Amino acid sequence: MDRKSFMSPEMAEECALRVRSVQSLMRSGEFHSPEALLISSNANIFYLSGRFFRGYVYVPVEGKAVYFLIRPAVFEESDTVRYIRKPEQIPGLLAEAGLSLPRQIGLEEDEISYSDILRLQKVFGGSVSLNCSSLLRRARMVKTPYEISEMKKDGLHQASVYRRIPRLYKPDMTDLEFQIEIERELRLEGCLGYIRTAGRLMEINMGSVINGANADTPTPYDFSMGGAGVDPSLPVGADGSIMHPGTTVMVDMNGSFNGYQTDMTRVWSVGKLPSLALKAHECSRRILRTLESATRPGMEICRLYDLAAEIVEEEGLQQYFMGHRQQVGFIGHGVGIELNEQPPVTHRNKTPVLESMTLAIEPKFVIPGVGAVGVENTYVVRPDGLECITPFPEEIREL
Amino acid sequence: MDRKSFMSPEMAEECALRVRSVQSLMRSGEFHSPEALLISSNANIFYLSGRFFRGYVYVPVEGKAVYFLIRPAVFEESDTVRYIRKPEQIPGLLAEAGLSLPRQIGLEEDEISYSDILRLQKVFGGSVSLNCSSLLRRARMVKTPYEISEMKKDGLHQASVYRRIPRLYKPDMTDLEFQIEIERELRLEGCLGYIRTAGRLMEINMGSVINGANADTPTPYDFSMGGAGVDPSLPVGADGSIMHPGTTVMVDMNGSFNGYQTDMTRVWSVGKLPSLALKAHECSRRILRTLESATRPGMEICRLYDLAAEIVEEEGLQQYFMGHRQQVGFIGHGVGIELNEQPPVTHRNKTPVLESMTLAIEPKFVIPGVGAVGVENTYVVRPDGLECITPFPEEIREL
Repeated sequence: MDRKSFMSPEMAEECALRVRSVQSLMRSGEFHSPEALLISSNANIFYLSGRFFRGYVYVPVEGKAVYFLIRPAVFEESDTVRYIRKPEQIPGLLAEAGLSLPRQIGLEEDEISYSDILRLQKVFGGSVSLNCSSLLRRARMVKTPYEISEMKKDGLHQASVYRRIPRLYKPDMTDLEFQIEIERELRLEGCLGYIRTAGRLMEINMGSVINGANADTPTPYDFSMGGAGVDPSLPVGADGSIMHPGTTVMVDMNGSFNGYQTDMTRVWSVGKLPSLALKAHECSRRILRTLESATRPGMEICRLYDLAAEIVEEEGLQQYFMGHRQQVGFIGHGVGIELNEQPPVTHRNKTPVLESMTLAIEPKFVIPGVGAVGVENTYVVRPDGLECITPFPEEIREL
Repeated sequence: MDRKSFMSPEMAEECALRVRSVQSLMRSGEFHSPEALLISSNANIFYLSGRFFRGYVYVPVEGKAVYFLIRPAVFEESDTVRYIRKPEQIPGLLAEAGLSLPRQIGLEEDEISYSDILRLQKVFGGSVSLNCSSLLRRARMVKTPYEISEMKKDGLHQASVYRRIPRLYKPDMTDLEFQIEIERELRLEGCLGYIRTAGRLMEINMGSVINGANADTPTPYDFSMGGAGVDPSLPVGADGSIMHPGTTVMVDMNGSFNGYQTDMTRVWSVGKLPSLALKAHECSRRILRTLESATRPGMEICRLYDLAAEIVEEEGLQQYFMGHRQQVGFIGHGVGIELNEQPPVTHRNKTPVLESMTLAIEPKFVIPGVGAVGVENTYVVRPDGLECITPFPEEIREL
């Protein structure tokens, strides 16, 4: 059977760069200084290899990462690509390769189940195990030039689909019917139709379309906006009601085309809107313009939140900000392989803004009876501000 | 703010039944006899409450379950429905309610992350913690009459969409374009567009459509069939190639309309097929007929696998059975809230078949260069055999 190369030369170089950035964090002293990591969560497997496979990535503090693959059995083996049946084989193979076992091994304790971590701790019985989840989140927070170029492609695809959204609308449509037509357009554009999220508290299909009063339905999930959904098993987004005049339709749909994703929200109106809704929407845009120009590497993340909150207060819109019946405490978040990456943009987050972070900023308002308004863009942090990678007009236009 | 009732009287009765079945397993001695369980995985939250919320369900070995909700804050509180901000409040609230703390607490160690389990172990610091994941899997394996009626609705919806599939086909379509039109029809029928799966090794959007040679691409996931997908970040299913004459199209799409789901596969052909493919497809149907009439509560699950394997051997089709380049070791699995529930139908599984289990049985074959053939139905185990709840013609018809 013909075996394929595990990585192209370009991807090998890219992954080596990512491995080095992980290794520099391992040496930084900020993350308990593990001597090696054993990675097996889906998102981190993709980050360190450029593909998804079933298996493990072993990252020593120096030298090359070793990829231990279980499935699929289609790739050529090498010094750094080895097939195994089970993780218990890893220490033996490391010894064969002349690698000494680490005194401290980092495992993804926030992502991997208790049972699986116990098993891996047994595999590395002589090593102290440490939690390396935050180290990986930190590494992935700052994107490489290649990652940014992939996300820019996502933003262009997503904008291309959003451009076709008005054509999909028909009077008396339900919010769900509208969402279904948007899903189809996204899929035809190449959207993978699957949103990788961090943590087990997020479940969503291809995004959410929220109309009118449904915007004020609190959700159990960690999304900025709610919506009842159409079934109590998945209480988020469109609820299947007809979109009546005088309401907004907020479209916050999947921008995942290549393992990365952008996050973009735009609002359309059905008929005319009351002035409060228009004012809140313009307030969202004012916040974005302010953050785009004021944000600098080195600032504390919470400063972004506070700048937004000051504008909201000045305009007297606090009671509608980031929800109405249920308000959330963030105005944005990192985005990339997963929809909800580090850092969350909250009032308390003192993490510094870093160059080449990708942030989805989403100052939104819920106007009771009218719906949700506001804009969400995905940005790259640059030395002189935020670069928008979801280029699409922000005005509310009538459907 | 108006609060809603957490459960309708009918759902309260249904959930009480499920809680009692969990409690009887807690007393059975087969699962380390925990005195209480603390449940927080999404699928088990839904099982024990009929809805998804963020929070915990506390199940004492006797008496009513207590629902500790974090979000959304929309339900009426009662003796058994309490709002909390964090799990650390649970022991105090239990004590207030006159419930003594358990000596052994069951936690979902196979589903919940290591970090979260450590936190819960600290919350119940005086209790020994046990793994209750398999107890819950065992409870959910046998469905209640209400669950079966929900799954029967799924089967009818799914069949209704499959009936419209031939109309969606156009010559020279890619497999992906075909899948996108099927996704839309499913969504318009009420499909939720999200597949809950067990374990972190499954990722899929709305299912898979596999055509021709792509059927023989091994997948890293635990699905019966492979497919390369269109991106290395999600290597499963349709690969975007044009469907040529002389190939099969296997449609195995999402049947989730209400928190439960059915699993159904049918095959269509593009042009005429070689006789080997038709023979293998008929072999799949012969296996299903045999299992439908031979299966009885009390039989070991492996007997189903072995009956299938005997037929395959008789027909000399072993090298194509359940894959070709990569073969999997099961011909079916439990299905319900999650796509891949207990029990897996394997050669080694000595678990007894139980009445009211729901099983997806999927004897499939991969014919190199032609594609995948075979049928998958979802069944309810009855005293006298298997009842099919995915009623749709099984023949291969030409598109």
